[in-house]
Amino acid sequence: MSELPGDTQYMARALQLARQGLYSTHPNPRVGCLIVAADGRVVGEGWHVRAGEPHAEVHALRQAAEAARGATAYVTLEPCSHFGRTPPCADALVQAGLRRVVVAMQDPNPQVAGRGLQRLRDAAIEVHCGVLAEEARELNRGFCKRMETGLPWVCAKLAMSLDGRTAMASGESQWITGPAARSAVQRLRARSSAVLTGADSVLQDGTRLTVRAAELGLEPAQAALALARPPRRILLDGRCRVPLQAPFFQAGSALVVAAQGDVARYAEAGHELWLLPGEAGQVDLLQLLRRLAEQGVNELLVESGARLVGALARQGLIDEYQIFMAAKLLGSSARPLLDWPLDSMQQAAELDIRQIRACGNDWRIVARPRPAHAGASTM
Amino acid sequence: MSELPGDTQYMARALQLARQGLYSTHPNPRVGCLIVAADGRVVGEGWHVRAGEPHAEVHALRQAAEAARGATAYVTLEPCSHFGRTPPCADALVQAGLRRVVVAMQDPNPQVAGRGLQRLRDAAIEVHCGVLAEEARELNRGFCKRMETGLPWVCAKLAMSLDGRTAMASGESQWITGPAARSAVQRLRARSSAVLTGADSVLQDGTRLTVRAAELGLEPAQAALALARPPRRILLDGRCRVPLQAPFFQAGSALVVAAQGDVARYAEAGHELWLLPGEAGQVDLLQLLRRLAEQGVNELLVESGARLVGALARQGLIDEYQIFMAAKLLGSSARPLLDWPLDSMQQAAELDIRQIRACGNDWRIVARPRPAHAGASTM
Repeated sequence: MSELPGDTQYMARALQLARQGLYSTHPNPRVGCLIVAADGRVVGEGWHVRAGEPHAEVHALRQAAEAARGATAYVTLEPCSHFGRTPPCADALVQAGLRRVVVAMQDPNPQVAGRGLQRLRDAAIEVHCGVLAEEARELNRGFCKRMETGLPWVCAKLAMSLDGRTAMASGESQWITGPAARSAVQRLRARSSAVLTGADSVLQDGTRLTVRAAELGLEPAQAALALARPPRRILLDGRCRVPLQAPFFQAGSALVVAAQGDVARYAEAGHELWLLPGEAGQVDLLQLLRRLAEQGVNELLVESGARLVGALARQGLIDEYQIFMAAKLLGSSARPLLDWPLDSMQQAAELDIRQIRACGNDWRIVARPRPAHAGASTM
Repeated sequence: MSELPGDTQYMARALQLARQGLYSTHPNPRVGCLIVAADGRVVGEGWHVRAGEPHAEVHALRQAAEAARGATAYVTLEPCSHFGRTPPCADALVQAGLRRVVVAMQDPNPQVAGRGLQRLRDAAIEVHCGVLAEEARELNRGFCKRMETGLPWVCAKLAMSLDGRTAMASGESQWITGPAARSAVQRLRARSSAVLTGADSVLQDGTRLTVRAAELGLEPAQAALALARPPRRILLDGRCRVPLQAPFFQAGSALVVAAQGDVARYAEAGHELWLLPGEAGQVDLLQLLRRLAEQGVNELLVESGARLVGALARQGLIDEYQIFMAAKLLGSSARPLLDWPLDSMQQAAELDIRQIRACGNDWRIVARPRPAHAGASTM
């Protein structure tokens, strides 16, 4: 079953719908659905809003009602075939009498993984898969990675000067970048399932990792969704140095990850403590990521000092850098971008820069480790 | 006398002509001239090729011949009014019978400085000055700065990683950036009157600062002009540490700038030595720049390690940074972009980023110090 003219345009619209769930669907993927009648009229639109609520297909089918009969559905992810908190969408599409279903990509969820498409084909529905697949995958990069590897997508946010420095030697760092960059960081937080920082950042900068409506720069409906589903706030504090009176803990219940510590003390204050001792008294970072994925974390945003980002980079655990670069020089005694001592040019970590764009007076650089380096340790 | 429709378009063409002299006019400015008949036909085009040879106006007038009578001339810089190595162009324009002369900007040369325009007006020629003035100034930023301040335009070229590092701790630095960036650097060298490096770079990397035809990436005619007028190669070597056998000296005669040393030794080998002792056994950088400007250096390109660039930056002597950024991380023990220890965010040097563009697999960042900082020391 091949692609037809118009498929790409309709799928692009379905992806647009899916993106409305950017801040609210996790742990579920963001999915959009468009139903187009034989005469080209769009008769139904839907997107998944929140886990536990109807999937995109259900919203679109409800809107289309009888018009779905003989129509084509465009779905950004393979319709599910299993009973989760809602019945299988593949069955709903069959029952609605669709003639054709176009899907951007197969669902990497092992519970689906082609079974949804098969169910449609078994019902003699014409199925075409692979329209704007890369865009669809990109939208759910966290969900896909979790399904495929058991790890979340790890994005490191860094704010640096043109000469690659994140703070003065004294630790002073507020504010390297301007309001537009801070607003972009708020949106990065809001789309993430969880946000991770380290003890140094919390002690030094009073980091709270909260999502604040006023700084999001989103339309009210989107902002409301984002605030209803804020990311889990995680503090990596190997030796439990951060006092419970710190702004970070005052901002709401949090998860602390340590190598040693008293679980009861945190529980009493409404927080959770995970003990994940690794080598040399450090927290086992890989173990932490695995456990977060098990709990449904698709995208993890790391906002920390050079030490934690450096440790993650050394272990090949970072999928993306979101770097906000200010047009200033902080000089040679200021702090490095990430603690990662390398000896030779051959060890240099190669990146793909995917985007450099102005962000207010600052510049936003999106970079990803080159495949050869992803997952490889260069220690 | 006001601007007429078409003036901007014709001046843009005149600037295009002027740019053909990018690699060859220094110490003179780059100038283009267009002669347009009353019916809008372009009857003459010219650009200044080399000092000592005819100015742009003369070339254009020769081409126009009788058609210049009653025409309009577009010149990117005020026509000269003094006898240099060629007679005054203002007189030539008067004699050719032009009706109107449009000029991009007044000549900052104190020997001209409005006198050329006055001479035209005295001859009852309609004169309009200030069309695309900013572009014209930009093209001759070195000449203008030299005329106005007695200092050359100083451009610091830096090659760095995404984390702001220029070399490994060991000094290893070849090659951070790729062939496209190296070719762009060749063109930066070729357009400069002089290129300056430091002893560390020459000793460590074997830097020669030569312009190489194969790497210029220019059309043959432009490349030939560039190679016929290579920049003066200057080595800053405070204590004369670089041996005369170094590739830098083998590549041709050079200028050495030191705080102490034996002039005769360099003279014998065909090189020149300037002794410019400053404070604490260092070379007096401001004195060096003044002397280079006196000798007609419009644009000085600095290609050095962190120490020399840092020293220039600290004294507010850098006008522009040309940074070639590679998509890689060199890590926290690698060398800094420039040696410039700052203590607080307030001391951070603010820059205006004028451009960020892909350059092969690397990125080229053009930044200039914010006016408040230019010329101000932040030591």
